[in-house]
Amino acid sequence: MKTNREWILRRRPEGPCVVDDFEYRESEFVNPALEPGHILVHNSVFLCAPTLRNWMDAPSNSLYPSIDLGAPVLATTAGRVLESTDDRFPVGTRVTMIGHWQKYDVVNSAVWPVRSVPEGQDLIEAMGPMGMNALTAYFGVTAVGRPLAGETMLVSGAAGSTGSVAAQIGKIMGCRVVGIAGGPDKCDWLINELGLDAAIDYRAGNLVEQIHETCPNGVDVFFDNVGGEILQAAVENINKFGRIVLCGQIAGYNESRPVQGPTNMMRFIYGSVRMQGFLLGDYEDELPRAREDMATWINEGRLKHREDVRTGFENIPTVYGEIFTGTNEGTLLIVTDEDAYATN
Amino acid sequence: MKTNREWILRRRPEGPCVVDDFEYRESEFVNPALEPGHILVHNSVFLCAPTLRNWMDAPSNSLYPSIDLGAPVLATTAGRVLESTDDRFPVGTRVTMIGHWQKYDVVNSAVWPVRSVPEGQDLIEAMGPMGMNALTAYFGVTAVGRPLAGETMLVSGAAGSTGSVAAQIGKIMGCRVVGIAGGPDKCDWLINELGLDAAIDYRAGNLVEQIHETCPNGVDVFFDNVGGEILQAAVENINKFGRIVLCGQIAGYNESRPVQGPTNMMRFIYGSVRMQGFLLGDYEDELPRAREDMATWINEGRLKHREDVRTGFENIPTVYGEIFTGTNEGTLLIVTDEDAYATN
Repeated sequence: MKTNREWILRRRPEGPCVVDDFEYRESEFVNPALEPGHILVHNSVFLCAPTLRNWMDAPSNSLYPSIDLGAPVLATTAGRVLESTDDRFPVGTRVTMIGHWQKYDVVNSAVWPVRSVPEGQDLIEAMGPMGMNALTAYFGVTAVGRPLAGETMLVSGAAGSTGSVAAQIGKIMGCRVVGIAGGPDKCDWLINELGLDAAIDYRAGNLVEQIHETCPNGVDVFFDNVGGEILQAAVENINKFGRIVLCGQIAGYNESRPVQGPTNMMRFIYGSVRMQGFLLGDYEDELPRAREDMATWINEGRLKHREDVRTGFENIPTVYGEIFTGTNEGTLLIVTDEDAYATN
Repeated sequence: MKTNREWILRRRPEGPCVVDDFEYRESEFVNPALEPGHILVHNSVFLCAPTLRNWMDAPSNSLYPSIDLGAPVLATTAGRVLESTDDRFPVGTRVTMIGHWQKYDVVNSAVWPVRSVPEGQDLIEAMGPMGMNALTAYFGVTAVGRPLAGETMLVSGAAGSTGSVAAQIGKIMGCRVVGIAGGPDKCDWLINELGLDAAIDYRAGNLVEQIHETCPNGVDVFFDNVGGEILQAAVENINKFGRIVLCGQIAGYNESRPVQGPTNMMRFIYGSVRMQGFLLGDYEDELPRAREDMATWINEGRLKHREDVRTGFENIPTVYGEIFTGTNEGTLLIVTDEDAYATN
């Protein structure tokens, strides 16, 4: 007899989500008869992606999913396929996917993004340096922002899981890269470990001026994970033909109202500025090239990554809350099973 | 002896500009010794472009020029070259340009956009159906918005000089086109004269709902001349991979604060939405193709245009104010000289 473990969305969070917004459940699990194009996955790793917080809100006008109250929490997970009616993911395949905070997880792989993990890679690597945050950074920089060598690229949330990869890819592409982060320790890390050209502590004074000082030639590409005031300050420094990559808006994920947008539309017009949102899924066909580039850069030591690995299925909601307080150091993962470390 | 006539910016307008913000001056004009790359132009036509109002404000962070107090008003004009040190514009050439509210106007044609008017075209045509508003619409639709046949294109300020051309080009490209305008008469004109598929009177009820009703498949391309609440309402209806063309933000030109930007950045992200500003000058190299396309469409009767022609140099500030009250019908021009009607 199998026991399933799951975290249910009990109520919609008000502001930051807290443990009481969720309910832990155990129940007997019997393998279901899968409909066509479905997979049953045994999850071993859970990625704390900020955007999950959006999915916990009531349905809105923002084109993202809304988790039903009483349903398991929709989440970024990795695990091994136990049963399958999808030829792309036979039994035994290890996958990363949009699944749920569940040990045994049935997913419609025809609808939700599921990606197989290549042999030789464990699930930590597949969720970390080669994971969806890292790949999101790759496409955000190379396909959306498209910086040219010599240009100035500014990155918000630069010490975070996605931002740190975006910033380093900017360096690899020959840009002057400036990162924005919270606190002197993170700023030191950006400069001394990642090799960025400058770092801005957003808690340390006027942002518009700090950007102006660290980007004396203006900002050509702004890779934004934060939004709100930081986005506004970047717009005030954006150059003619500047590009703003909208990757995340973490400043507003815990707010009940939509995040404020930038207010200086005239600068967009006279600057011929392009602001563009994107999702990793838009570039599904180009994943092989991305993975090849990323693996090369990692092997050459040009792309550093750090994971902050925690354990215990029972701790998922508590650990998840940390991404909003910024106490994690690197990509925040929760490992719930030793299969996380298998490489085939 | 020549007498120059000019309108000087006497003080910065608060809200809508009024005649007292300007001062009329006459003075003896002696042809100056031109520096290299300059032209002396005798202006005969003045185009009332909404964006001039921005230029009357104090210097800001919005990348557009600010007219000095006591200087002649920077403006879109057309006339004939009287003296020249720029080989591209020999004496006798007729030009459209960013000049000034002046009869005799010295322009640095190496810095400011100047374009020659082809033989056979009078200056009304060069400022109207083939003018900068019309060409701006052309590039905004074809180069920035890039709608595909069968897509839905929404246009704000659709009865205006730029918007009416943008909307018709959308039809020519095979789109379903919906126009937003103020009042039932303009809406009737959009449907019955320009052949749009639907029209929205922005004064007649909830905009988000009106867009939803007239664009049941959502909005693929939004061509925005207005900004503010109209931009926000369009964002709430924008489709996956939608494009927002930022052409103008007339809703805020008379405001002392920057126009509000859209607040739903998450829809930009999950919708992979692109919002892009642009200026006609970005596409200077492609003007010949644009003019050819436009001339073909006009000759085929597929692109209609109306000009609202007024007269009298002394009336410039009064007439200019009408573009913000919407009492003009079509591209608002002020003719100050019979040379406006010459075709070579």
